[in-house]
Amino acid sequence: MKTLKVIKIGGNIINNEDSLLTFLKGFSSLKGPKILVHGGGKLASDLSNKLNIPVQLIDGRRVTNAETLDIITMVYAGKINKNIVAKLQSFGCNSVGFSGADGNTIIANKRSETPINYGFAGDVVKVNIEVPKALLNNNIANIFSAISHDEKGQLLNTNADTIASELAIAFSKNYKVELYYCFEKKGVLQSINDENSVIKKINNKTYIELKESNIINEGMIPKLDNCFYALDHHVSKVCIGHPSMLFDHHSNFTTIQKL
Amino acid sequence: MKTLKVIKIGGNIINNEDSLLTFLKGFSSLKGPKILVHGGGKLASDLSNKLNIPVQLIDGRRVTNAETLDIITMVYAGKINKNIVAKLQSFGCNSVGFSGADGNTIIANKRSETPINYGFAGDVVKVNIEVPKALLNNNIANIFSAISHDEKGQLLNTNADTIASELAIAFSKNYKVELYYCFEKKGVLQSINDENSVIKKINNKTYIELKESNIINEGMIPKLDNCFYALDHHVSKVCIGHPSMLFDHHSNFTTIQKL
Repeated sequence: MKTLKVIKIGGNIINNEDSLLTFLKGFSSLKGPKILVHGGGKLASDLSNKLNIPVQLIDGRRVTNAETLDIITMVYAGKINKNIVAKLQSFGCNSVGFSGADGNTIIANKRSETPINYGFAGDVVKVNIEVPKALLNNNIANIFSAISHDEKGQLLNTNADTIASELAIAFSKNYKVELYYCFEKKGVLQSINDENSVIKKINNKTYIELKESNIINEGMIPKLDNCFYALDHHVSKVCIGHPSMLFDHHSNFTTIQKL
Repeated sequence: MKTLKVIKIGGNIINNEDSLLTFLKGFSSLKGPKILVHGGGKLASDLSNKLNIPVQLIDGRRVTNAETLDIITMVYAGKINKNIVAKLQSFGCNSVGFSGADGNTIIANKRSETPINYGFAGDVVKVNIEVPKALLNNNIANIFSAISHDEKGQLLNTNADTIASELAIAFSKNYKVELYYCFEKKGVLQSINDENSVIKKINNKTYIELKESNIINEGMIPKLDNCFYALDHHVSKVCIGHPSMLFDHHSNFTTIQKL
């Protein structure tokens, strides 16, 4: 089977024009089929603030009323996605931008309003890979914004980490899939204040220990849950770290492994 | 050759939720390969106003500084395009949304800054149909927002009528292409105040006469120039009218013809 790279980029890479450009140059140079997944929370919050629409986050997840969904759709699927695609084209990397509605790729249910009403937030129920796969087969990268739909005409805001893991899982029938969560740090850190304290490997057993000792907490827990979920569903490799892990195999980063 | 319908919808259809939904239901029911092209000028101007960014139009064309280009990209390629695709999916019409950057489909040059500086406005120089054609062959409609790119990383605001005619022309090598310009009126009117005074046919000769008698003027001239340009470049049929012309062949609308 061919190897497919599914790469999710986080906030601080998107928010900084230089770091995004450097990343996209690198992404363009990667051989083989590749999928990029992005959100863009900070830029969405900036636009909300400019429009005097309150930004409400609960446990780091955005409460998405109709106005906020419009902002998410405009910023993620419009501004960020299309600028990424245009930059990739300039680097000779042919690409097509997707929301989960395009090609009916990512179908979600609106999350139950209890115990917390997150509004138009979607939990993924199905991924259709036909259209993205056809493009990958023609050497065209897929650029996914973190938006799904319910097949009833409703767009839904969906966590970008989840979109990445669900895509990785769905493609695992046809590819050997490697899933990379890229952010501004070098990986999961033993000590949050020491950039070089990267934990090189985390498995099911050490994950429990790291949670018990509170080394892994808060936002990192859903991310790591996503990683193990992907590994449990035939994704072959899952890594967390700075984008440089994609280009420099001597760099330090965190690999998530099953025992 | 198979028939391909290229359909452009104008402002008043997009701005009204009910008329858009009615149109999209109809669009979904159309047999055969189909492309939809949309702009969304009024919604873009609304967002500009909310953000206190001045809206400047010269001869009906938007002056597009960097902030306005962001708005255009967010509104056209984000909000409008993704909501259209989601609604079409709910009607069982599989579709993929495009900007001209996606699949490197629509390449433009930034318009010369003299005599008028329109900012990030693009004049189309090339259309690559490979990606959209592959999707059409798999019964997936293409939904184009009126944005092009320059292959150097820059998105460009481009007239939706022009995007439609350039797509129609580019596909004419592979399809018998019908180009439909849909707006709120029934067609080109003999008398602007009489909704029923539809001119059923306009050819090169009567076009000159209609311009001389000032029956056709202002915004309708570039639209009709686009129509004749398409007919001169192997598009087989060009019509202007209310979307009902697509579904009811007894309705009145304007057909543009070469002598």
